[in-house]
Amino acid sequence: MTTTIIIGGVAGGMSTATRLRRNDEDMEIIVLEASGNVSFANCGLPYYVGNVITDRDALLLQTPEALKDRFNLDVRVNTRAVSIDRDNQTITTEQGETLKYDTLVLSPGANPIQLPIDGIEHALTLRNVEDVDRIVAATEGAKSAAVIGGGFIGLELAENFTHRGIKTTVIERGPEIMAPLDSEMSAIVRKHLEANGVTVLLNADTTRIDTNSITLSDGRTIDSDITIAAVGVAPANELAVMAGLEVGERGGIVVDDEQRTSDPKIFALGDAAEKRDGIDGTDTLVPLAQTANRHGRMVADIIAGRDTKRTGTLGTSIVGLFGLSAASVGWNERRARQKGHNLRLIHLHPADHAGYYPGASTVHLKLVVNADTDEILGAQGVGQAGVDKRIDVIATAMRAGLKATDLADLELSYAPQFSSAKDPVNMAGFINDNMIRGEKTVQYYEIEEKLAQGFELIDVRETSEYAAGAIPGSRNIPLNTLRDHIDELRGKKIIVHCQTGVRSHTATSLLRNNEIDVSNLDGGYVTWAAVQ
Amino acid sequence: MTTTIIIGGVAGGMSTATRLRRNDEDMEIIVLEASGNVSFANCGLPYYVGNVITDRDALLLQTPEALKDRFNLDVRVNTRAVSIDRDNQTITTEQGETLKYDTLVLSPGANPIQLPIDGIEHALTLRNVEDVDRIVAATEGAKSAAVIGGGFIGLELAENFTHRGIKTTVIERGPEIMAPLDSEMSAIVRKHLEANGVTVLLNADTTRIDTNSITLSDGRTIDSDITIAAVGVAPANELAVMAGLEVGERGGIVVDDEQRTSDPKIFALGDAAEKRDGIDGTDTLVPLAQTANRHGRMVADIIAGRDTKRTGTLGTSIVGLFGLSAASVGWNERRARQKGHNLRLIHLHPADHAGYYPGASTVHLKLVVNADTDEILGAQGVGQAGVDKRIDVIATAMRAGLKATDLADLELSYAPQFSSAKDPVNMAGFINDNMIRGEKTVQYYEIEEKLAQGFELIDVRETSEYAAGAIPGSRNIPLNTLRDHIDELRGKKIIVHCQTGVRSHTATSLLRNNEIDVSNLDGGYVTWAAVQ
Repeated sequence: MTTTIIIGGVAGGMSTATRLRRNDEDMEIIVLEASGNVSFANCGLPYYVGNVITDRDALLLQTPEALKDRFNLDVRVNTRAVSIDRDNQTITTEQGETLKYDTLVLSPGANPIQLPIDGIEHALTLRNVEDVDRIVAATEGAKSAAVIGGGFIGLELAENFTHRGIKTTVIERGPEIMAPLDSEMSAIVRKHLEANGVTVLLNADTTRIDTNSITLSDGRTIDSDITIAAVGVAPANELAVMAGLEVGERGGIVVDDEQRTSDPKIFALGDAAEKRDGIDGTDTLVPLAQTANRHGRMVADIIAGRDTKRTGTLGTSIVGLFGLSAASVGWNERRARQKGHNLRLIHLHPADHAGYYPGASTVHLKLVVNADTDEILGAQGVGQAGVDKRIDVIATAMRAGLKATDLADLELSYAPQFSSAKDPVNMAGFINDNMIRGEKTVQYYEIEEKLAQGFELIDVRETSEYAAGAIPGSRNIPLNTLRDHIDELRGKKIIVHCQTGVRSHTATSLLRNNEIDVSNLDGGYVTWAAVQ
Repeated sequence: MTTTIIIGGVAGGMSTATRLRRNDEDMEIIVLEASGNVSFANCGLPYYVGNVITDRDALLLQTPEALKDRFNLDVRVNTRAVSIDRDNQTITTEQGETLKYDTLVLSPGANPIQLPIDGIEHALTLRNVEDVDRIVAATEGAKSAAVIGGGFIGLELAENFTHRGIKTTVIERGPEIMAPLDSEMSAIVRKHLEANGVTVLLNADTTRIDTNSITLSDGRTIDSDITIAAVGVAPANELAVMAGLEVGERGGIVVDDEQRTSDPKIFALGDAAEKRDGIDGTDTLVPLAQTANRHGRMVADIIAGRDTKRTGTLGTSIVGLFGLSAASVGWNERRARQKGHNLRLIHLHPADHAGYYPGASTVHLKLVVNADTDEILGAQGVGQAGVDKRIDVIATAMRAGLKATDLADLELSYAPQFSSAKDPVNMAGFINDNMIRGEKTVQYYEIEEKLAQGFELIDVRETSEYAAGAIPGSRNIPLNTLRDHIDELRGKKIIVHCQTGVRSHTATSLLRNNEIDVSNLDGGYVTWAAVQ
């Protein structure tokens, strides 16, 4: 009988264990979990803090006993592996027990990054059920909270503290929250958080944490009966490093396309392991449950002798905050620029479903395209409904290698409750197609410079819309009267814009057909206004 | 100056006209629309009947005046073209006017099929704004309605009559409503309609329509103050036939991949034209707004000299009924069998999002796969939430040529409000992968025959679930005790099932690993029970 030992009993580890048993009835399968629970709903933990999930047991998806009955697994909680002896193929636990393996799977997850600041011991982190119990206990009687870090977990906690009536401040070190999004997209999320009572401080550096307050580098103090440190996670690579396994620059355990570490008897997966970027194949870290689960299944199949390999990771992710969702896949503009690509950028703001059917809301969508190859490099979406769908569709298109132009031809289900006859994803494809055919666009951050260079900015919205708020330096010529102004625009360099870019596309076509040098402001007033 | 005449001013025709103007500022563009309105929200009409859409103006997306101002289009409503003179390149209107064209675009839509039965003049049909006005007028004081035809429009009207407190009966000639779905999927929709107060009669043939009742072939009479005939549509090909253009078997105007009819100066698109099936390239009819709009844009580009071609049509569609949605893409099992393929069929019933997060509901999903090539032939989904997303993802995968196995590797956005770490689409891919690896399944309709052949049916659900309702002839061995029964099952032919197929997959693996001949009941008790 062979033995597989799996270190870590949550997403990746437990997927490996159960699949391995389905593959092989006879193998001895031992799962060691350092915390007191296995298979817990780690993505649900913030919602238990906010009483959105009211039943603590709902977080505990499996018990060691049930896993023994159903899968004949030997699952040991509160059991931390402290060393690996690769020569003898054994691991040793904190309790001093030594266990022999034929195959070892490392799925220990990631650790919250520790801030090197005074009073950090007053800050709580969120990783497992014990952590959430501590946070819930701390909310009793708390009036204020500070969340250091404007990423997914920090923002989810901020929402849930607010649900409990706790006045919450998010402290973000960077210029904007939600790093996976570009700033004009995450600004929409930030304003929504603020509208729901969360204070968000940008470019803010915490220097000291006390019991009931935190202090920033500029001297401000923020009331904080509970302080959360959620500035990101780092691969839990301690065991791997000690055992001499290869570890990457950013700490991820190096694995090949079969998730094998530098020791062929040891696999690694989940947040602790490096991933292969789905776009350019470089090494990357993507701490997502979906990938961990998928790789768990795959590692179990490889251990069982099957020939299978990982695909690259696109890092598709989503967060829901006060009814708004924000999702992304692939690279954002910032990253795509770092990689040195020529980009086609597309912002659009269509309704999630037909405007004539009640309840429509705006889907803010951004597409990042390689201008030389038409490859879709990434997409971002923000809105109250239908964002998950559009990002999933684009993620599928990216995985399949569809080009941006192909988005125009996707046949997506349409009835007025669900979409428009031209779905937002189709619209993104149409805009891309227009650009390939020569329609020039400018980005919101280029406006000031263009105006300084003598471009004229024409706002083709209705007079009433213009009066309600306009871009400084713009001139209002409503679209339906634009034909009357052709002659006076000849010879000038024109930028047109409307609310979202749809009417200004018609204006752009009209002026181009009259041989006027014209660009469309991508995303229109809405994108420009998002960052004001 | 060249002239393009477009016959039909709704989805396809108006998409052609506006795109054509954006492509060419100088062309004369004339749109002739037989009804009194252009660009109306035809997919929204049923919801105006039910006061879901309360503002009639919301249905009217554009007026001829606005289209003149913005796009310099010559739009003529209440103007029916009655003949085409191809030699002289003219059309003549009902009013007797003759108009010369350089290019003609036929986008006249489809006509409701007329039932050849007594009293058909008492039945209303729904195609345009005038029709909906007639239906709304007829609802005043009406207590009962009969809808002949259990397709999308008929069912949407049945829902909306019910919203108005009108007791409604749907009369379906076939064995089940909603022909795009297989019967075990549409049965879920039918039961939901019934639970919401709609009476559905299957295998029911209407022979006579009176003012306040209808009569069926078996002699039953049904109260019906309003009778709707919604048994399908046929291409509005009258003009094309008269002009000698080639028309297909089922009446669709024959077009090439540029939407050109047999006369190269005449294009046709929308419900009146044939489509090319996206799976096997055969001619088909797909009366959907999305395709009409897409082809309109394409025809405008071709007229403007661009080299572009249509892609095949997958017929992705969805309907929402009393909060339940039902969607499909590609071929259903029935059609795939007619085409003679070996099939892999996959039914699953996962939650739309993580079960531990409030509000999760079931997504009933069916995947039809070519067993020889792993090609995805079609998919169907029914559920309260997230059905549109999963069908759109699969439609994208199909368009891109992904195989069923590739669904396992799609990276779809996950947070507990939106999905599970293993999305339903991933799960479908996993099941497909299990089947490729040799897991045998049986379909719900094979159970009786298999039992007669001596197979033993083991229900691995908990004892309490079994007690609440079980498949006749099944024996209950809860999964967690199955290991204790291995010896007694050896040498037998076993079918296992649970509620949805998940636990029985574990059971199947366990028995297979013990070299027992075992099949999993695809879709479990839920699929079996749907058709009881």
